[in-house]
Amino acid sequence: MTTVTGHTNAIRAGKAIGTKVYDRSGDKLGEVVDIVLEKTSNNILFAVISFGGVLGLGEKYHPVPWSVLDYDKERGGYVVPFTREQLKAAPADSLEALTKDDGRAFRDRAFSHYGARPYWH
Amino acid sequence: MTTVTGHTNAIRAGKAIGTKVYDRSGDKLGEVVDIVLEKTSNNILFAVISFGGVLGLGEKYHPVPWSVLDYDKERGGYVVPFTREQLKAAPADSLEALTKDDGRAFRDRAFSHYGARPYWH
Repeated sequence: MTTVTGHTNAIRAGKAIGTKVYDRSGDKLGEVVDIVLEKTSNNILFAVISFGGVLGLGEKYHPVPWSVLDYDKERGGYVVPFTREQLKAAPADSLEALTKDDGRAFRDRAFSHYGARPYWH
Repeated sequence: MTTVTGHTNAIRAGKAIGTKVYDRSGDKLGEVVDIVLEKTSNNILFAVISFGGVLGLGEKYHPVPWSVLDYDKERGGYVVPFTREQLKAAPADSLEALTKDDGRAFRDRAFSHYGARPYWH
């Protein structure tokens, strides 16, 4: 599934969903399951990625800062700079839990865990 | 399709896509076709709504400010405060055109047309 065509910086959520996610050495880590949005603002809270396959932890859903995902045209998927150790210790829960309340608790935990700059400050 | 459950302000893009859109009198206007995101920020550029059915203009895709969409639990869809006149004169193009380049030209036109506050200022 191609997410970026040409030199665009605009991406349809429906295309990003289902895209595979790789680590820097090219191993498949999982895929983008969904993207969680804030209803009353124009903010993307986080992407939801399933890393269950590679970690052998069963199907778990990880909130990951959206802008950390780096699209690699040749691989046809996103590359993330995470180590397996980071992933194993990362925030994760069911899809329902990730989107209950306002989603900000998981957003905050994810940005902190992966060392991403909080865009809301 | 239910987008909001309980008192959440977090919504999965994959659930919002496909949700019907109504005007204030309850007439169906169209549906959410996709949501366009900015890749290198955490911003939602706009929702893409097809209003072709009601306007008889064929399948056209309208960029609409995301936060204008107001979810109505009883209707099971979004309600927008637009008049048919606003819709007929609204920015619209093919999906490809809406997402080429960085998407900001269509975002700017949509926010201006519908009188939404530009979140990027």
